[in-house]
Amino acid sequence: PHVPYSPVQYSVSEMLDRSERFYTLMNLRRSVRFISPEPVPKEVIDNVIRTAGTAPSGAHTEPWTFVVVSDTDVKHRIREIIEEEEEINYKQRMGNKWVQDLKRLRTNWVKEYLDVAPYLILVFKQAYGILPSGKKKTHYYNEISVSISCGILLAALQNAGLVTVTTTPLNCGPQLRSLLQRPANEKLLMLLPVGFPASDAKVPDLKRKDLNDIMVLV
Amino acid sequence: PHVPYSPVQYSVSEMLDRSERFYTLMNLRRSVRFISPEPVPKEVIDNVIRTAGTAPSGAHTEPWTFVVVSDTDVKHRIREIIEEEEEINYKQRMGNKWVQDLKRLRTNWVKEYLDVAPYLILVFKQAYGILPSGKKKTHYYNEISVSISCGILLAALQNAGLVTVTTTPLNCGPQLRSLLQRPANEKLLMLLPVGFPASDAKVPDLKRKDLNDIMVLV
Ligand SMILES: Cc1cc2nc3c(=O)[nH]c(=O)nc-3n(C[C@H](O)[C@H](O)[C@H](O)COP(=O)(O)O)c2cc1C
Ligand SMILES: Cc1cc2nc3c(=O)[nH]c(=O)nc-3n(C[C@H](O)[C@H](O)[C@H](O)COP(=O)(O)O)c2cc1C
Repeated sequence: PHVPYSPVQYSVSEMLDRSERFYTLMNLRRSVRFISPEPVPKEVIDNVIRTAGTAPSGAHTEPWTFVVVSDTDVKHRIREIIEEEEEINYKQRMGNKWVQDLKRLRTNWVKEYLDVAPYLILVFKQAYGILPSGKKKTHYYNEISVSISCGILLAALQNAGLVTVTTTPLNCGPQLRSLLQRPANEKLLMLLPVGFPASDAKVPDLKRKDLNDIMVLV
Repeated sequence: PHVPYSPVQYSVSEMLDRSERFYTLMNLRRSVRFISPEPVPKEVIDNVIRTAGTAPSGAHTEPWTFVVVSDTDVKHRIREIIEEEEEINYKQRMGNKWVQDLKRLRTNWVKEYLDVAPYLILVFKQAYGILPSGKKKTHYYNEISVSISCGILLAALQNAGLVTVTTTPLNCGPQLRSLLQRPANEKLLMLLPVGFPASDAKVPDLKRKDLNDIMVLV
C-alpha cells in the first residue's frame, strides 16, 4: 500500500539559512585520531545508530548491523588484531606508494584510540539476507547502501558534538567477525572509534576542494 | 603540518536533545518518486553540494564529481537513455526475483521525474585521479568514499526541505558519461532527482527496522 507523503516545509529564506548552517557544521567535521576516555551518554549513541538506520537501501533491504563495543577487554582484543594486521599492511601489503600517500596524515599501525575511545562502532554489511525458509535473500547494492548509512551516521555524530575517524581495517574482517560472533553473511565494512576529542588532539592541516572543483553545471 | 582540533562542544542535555531532533528529522526522509516542477533556489543546491564535499575520503582523495543538470533538453535526453535501458533491465536483465522484490515499491521503467525535477544530480566516482605528470593516482576506497558523501548529501537535502530518490541506473553509466562529457576516470555511481515533492506524492508504506534489529551491544 502507498500513503501520502507529508513533506517538511520551509520558506525560501529558511531553506537558505538551514542549508548554510548545516554546511558550516559539517565542514567542521574532521577525522580525529586522538580520542578522550571521557564517557559518552549511551542514549546519544542509540540516537546516532537510529539515525543511521533511516538511510535508503536497495529495495529497502536495510543491510546493516552496527556492533557497538564498550567492553574494555573486547576493545583491547580488537586493538591487538588490528595492530598486528596493520603493521603487516604498512610494512608489506600496502606498497611504497600507498604508505607515501598517507605520509602527510602521519598515520601508522599503532592505534591507541582502539583502547581509549568509549565506544567502537563496527559497521557490518549483510552481503545477503536469510529468508524464514532458510534461503538466501539478495541484498542489492549492499555496500553502497551501508556506506550511505555511514555518511548519515557521521553527520549524526558531528551534529551531536562527537568525533570519530572512518577506518577500513584491511585484512582484519574475518578475525573481527569471529571475535564478535557475527554470522557468515556479515562482512566488516568500517570501524569508527567514537568519543570526545582528546584535549590536545591535532589533525592534519588539510584543505577541501572548492565548490567549482567538485560541481559541474549543465 | 598538524594543527590543533577545535571541537564543537555541547552540554550532555544539549547532545541528547540535538541527537534526538536530528534523528526525528532524518526519520522523516523518504525516497520520493513524484517531484514538483516548482523551482528550487540554486544557492541551496550549492550549499548541499558543498556539504557533500565535506565527507571523509580514503587518503583525502575527494574522489567525487557532482554534475548538476537543470537544462531541459539534457534532462530529457537523460530520461530517454535511462528509460530505454530500464525497460530492458525490468524485462530481461534483472530477473524475476529482483522484479518481484521491487513489486511493493511499484517502481518501473517510466521515470517522469527525470523531466520534471528542477535538478538532476549525477554523482560520479573518480575511479582514479590524474597527476600533473599525467600518471594515474590511486583513489583508495573511492566507491565507499563517494557513497558516504552521498549519505551526507541526502542528509543536507532533507535538512533543507528537499526530496530525492537515490537511484543507480543500471547499464546507463557509459551513455550518461558520454552525454555529459565526463572523462574516462569518472564512473556514474548514482542519480538523484532533486526538488520539492509533488502535492499528491505518495510513498510506499514501509517500516524501518527497530534499533534492536540493527544494533548489537558488546
Ligand atoms: C544504492 C541504492 C539504490 C537504489 N536504487 C533505486 C532505483 O534504481 N530506483 C528507485 O526507485 N529506488 C531506488 N532506491 C531507493 C530504495 O528503493 C529506497 O531507499 C528503499 O525502498 C527505502 O525507502 P526510503 O528511502 O523511503 O526509506 C535505491 C536506494 C539505494 C540506497
Ligand atoms: C573509506 C575510507 C577509509 C579510510 N580509512 C582510514 C584508515 O584506515 N585510517 C585512518 O586513519 N583514516 C582513514 N580514513 C580517513 C581519511 O584519511 C580522512 O577522511 C581524510 O584524510 C580527510 O580528512 P577529514 O576526514 O578530516 O576531512 C578513511 C576514510 C574513508 C572515507
